[in-house]
Amino acid sequence: MTPPDAPTFSRQPVALAHAYRLLNPGPTVLIGARHEGRSNVMAAAWTMPLDFEPPKVAVVMDKSTWTRQLVLASGHFVISVPCQAQAALVTRLGQTSGATVDKFDPAQTPALQTLDEPAATGPLVAGCVAWLACRRLPEPDIEARLDLFVGEVTAAWADPRVFSQGRWHFDAAPEALRTLHHVAGGHYLAIGQPVAGA
Amino acid sequence: MTPPDAPTFSRQPVALAHAYRLLNPGPTVLIGARHEGRSNVMAAAWTMPLDFEPPKVAVVMDKSTWTRQLVLASGHFVISVPCQAQAALVTRLGQTSGATVDKFDPAQTPALQTLDEPAATGPLVAGCVAWLACRRLPEPDIEARLDLFVGEVTAAWADPRVFSQGRWHFDAAPEALRTLHHVAGGHYLAIGQPVAGA
Repeated sequence: MTPPDAPTFSRQPVALAHAYRLLNPGPTVLIGARHEGRSNVMAAAWTMPLDFEPPKVAVVMDKSTWTRQLVLASGHFVISVPCQAQAALVTRLGQTSGATVDKFDPAQTPALQTLDEPAATGPLVAGCVAWLACRRLPEPDIEARLDLFVGEVTAAWADPRVFSQGRWHFDAAPEALRTLHHVAGGHYLAIGQPVAGA
Repeated sequence: MTPPDAPTFSRQPVALAHAYRLLNPGPTVLIGARHEGRSNVMAAAWTMPLDFEPPKVAVVMDKSTWTRQLVLASGHFVISVPCQAQAALVTRLGQTSGATVDKFDPAQTPALQTLDEPAATGPLVAGCVAWLACRRLPEPDIEARLDLFVGEVTAAWADPRVFSQGRWHFDAAPEALRTLHHVAGGHYLAIGQPVAGA
């Protein structure tokens, strides 16, 4: 966990044509939304890219989640891609509900800090390694039946220590910056070594 | 790549309640389908679990893919989760189309071997580390507009060296058995080390 007074992040814009690559390796993410002064962030392992350009993503949000209500009300959501240093935060955000707890109360979730980014219409989580701002593309039928939401990516950013020129590259960065991939019950696997497939 | 005459796999059934966990960490997969004696296998990075029980998955299949035609015709598809040893095979299967090439022709794809499994209504790829048999749940609207397909998992299996008791565990297994996570253009990251999130 990052101390509140430490320099918490580095962030550079990612070309929209490369935004899908932020989710290509299948990281566990944090989904955030904001409406009329209320914000929430939930953990989600069930997300994937859905199209290249304009970039779209698909995410699963259960009917019980408070984030889903904020997405439906605001028409927007944001995705933050957390890293190994944030594993405890991710688990914590997955175990509590914004319907009953204000996750931004430092007494509840001291490690949850957000970034100041005007282009994001939801809370971007500080200390993560990539972020996507999304506009909900309304799909009321599959939202209701399958809990499946579709968003168009309107802006994206990444920490250039691990993602630049359209590629993830973890080898020269601290281990703490590796993405998390959920196994079960708050246990994760960090992303590992490069493998050439040709 | 596994020589054709080597013992190529170990395989145990996975409880349907745990089937979603095979895709939880976001591996790149191979999607296969079979109809009237014609089979195909394609590489796909865009897949995710969609529900727990009955287990459902969502996969993206472009209109140009031959596998999509076989899924529509047969009502079934199968997912194989490949490993590091198969990176070149995965790239090869992603670069060729079954519409113009018979990928099961040994001259085309010598490393592509399938398993004999009566419960699978499509070609399971030998040497992979997990497999899911799926029944297409017809969603003609989102299939046509979003290239998004939904399947119910009807059977699942995994290599017990890396998945057992409902959990992936790679630490005690050969590196070659680690799952692949696509970066871009046939470059992958292998899954890495465990991270406790509590």
